[in-house]
Amino acid sequence: MTYCLALSLDEGLVFASDTRTNAGADYVTSYAKTHLFEVAADRTFVLCTAGNLATSQEIVNRIRHDLEVDDGRNTLANLTHMWELANYVGRVSLDVQEWHARGLQRTGADGSATLLFGGQVAGARPEIFMIYPEGNPIASSPETPYLQIGENKYGKPILDRLARSSMTLAEGARLALVSLDATVKSNVTVGPPFDITTYRTDTFTFDTHERIEADSPYYEQLRDTWQTGQRNAFDALPPFPWEPGP
Amino acid sequence: MTYCLALSLDEGLVFASDTRTNAGADYVTSYAKTHLFEVAADRTFVLCTAGNLATSQEIVNRIRHDLEVDDGRNTLANLTHMWELANYVGRVSLDVQEWHARGLQRTGADGSATLLFGGQVAGARPEIFMIYPEGNPIASSPETPYLQIGENKYGKPILDRLARSSMTLAEGARLALVSLDATVKSNVTVGPPFDITTYRTDTFTFDTHERIEADSPYYEQLRDTWQTGQRNAFDALPPFPWEPGP
Repeated sequence: MTYCLALSLDEGLVFASDTRTNAGADYVTSYAKTHLFEVAADRTFVLCTAGNLATSQEIVNRIRHDLEVDDGRNTLANLTHMWELANYVGRVSLDVQEWHARGLQRTGADGSATLLFGGQVAGARPEIFMIYPEGNPIASSPETPYLQIGENKYGKPILDRLARSSMTLAEGARLALVSLDATVKSNVTVGPPFDITTYRTDTFTFDTHERIEADSPYYEQLRDTWQTGQRNAFDALPPFPWEPGP
Repeated sequence: MTYCLALSLDEGLVFASDTRTNAGADYVTSYAKTHLFEVAADRTFVLCTAGNLATSQEIVNRIRHDLEVDDGRNTLANLTHMWELANYVGRVSLDVQEWHARGLQRTGADGSATLLFGGQVAGARPEIFMIYPEGNPIASSPETPYLQIGENKYGKPILDRLARSSMTLAEGARLALVSLDATVKSNVTVGPPFDITTYRTDTFTFDTHERIEADSPYYEQLRDTWQTGQRNAFDALPPFPWEPGP
């Protein structure tokens, strides 16, 4: 399984992903699911992948290959608008899935992939998109500044509660880590290390791109502090009217 | 949709459920999903239902009917062990589903139901079971003192974090309400009012059985306090090593 999320904040973008992949519960491996594309001085992109690993890898390979060939075809380098770029990535995903459909249909295997794609082209504001297996993208909104793919339910309540466009990039990255941690606690097929990437608007390079291991002192400190905070928040809840006094 | 949960604590049992049912997103109604059975002075049970509403109602009707007929058949009144009683309820569920299978198969409708069943028979400790649509039950464990049915993912992280057998009944009821609230925030097909029931070991009656409305002052206070607690817990998290100092 996989869990990736992205936040679109006033300061810029945050992307976070786990690294666990599994083919059944008895073949678990670790792969990066966040892919960085520093294409040119005027554009920078991030792609996160969930779903079939072969499809995910081939999508990334085809996008990089398109950039190298440079024969006039659509690429991350020559399209202008973020929605066009998201559609291009969605079309690459669809092409990969259709190419392998004949083989996959023989066994009924699911070759689909769901993507998060975001970044900025100079002259417009940064954006994030979730791209369905069908290839069509949806953007985030100011009211819902996050997008998720993969095992998204366990990590959603804390986003619904705290995600705001006005958060700093660091706050967004911390919230993403809390959301990942909630998912890891409830689903063993999502696991560390985590990749967390932040992009500050109009810089066209990555502010931070950090890998956080399970035993990283920072992650341990964050987990302990969060657990204590949850316990304190719970202990502060009001007693029911029917409870006897202390 | 539905979300119900039960906790097995040292002090006794907690059951909680929402009341929203929907046939599609355009037909939403409110039904109690927690059913109380004060069968005799030596036994008390609770049944929570998720899934097909017709199946759920008929399961409850058949269980009550079996008690009334009293012709030597298995009932909640004459079986001895909690695992036997859970199997009886599971068999009633299976019988209802099989009775309606011919009709349901015509349209491909899903007639299945998943149940939480718990209570106590004098001489043994209280227990809770989750009963699959197939009719077979699983019990909770000291390590995992909760069981859930229906839309269980949004409310699971807080249970994994805080549910302990050593909680008081009131703490368990509060935790159940927090878990319900997380679910309501993330899935509009789960909604208040909520039913919360507590059973204290060896009392064979219900300690509390409370309906909590969306606008109940207690629920509003709990939500506000919890939201503030979450915000405080988040603000207390340690800064990343790469963050500039304050």
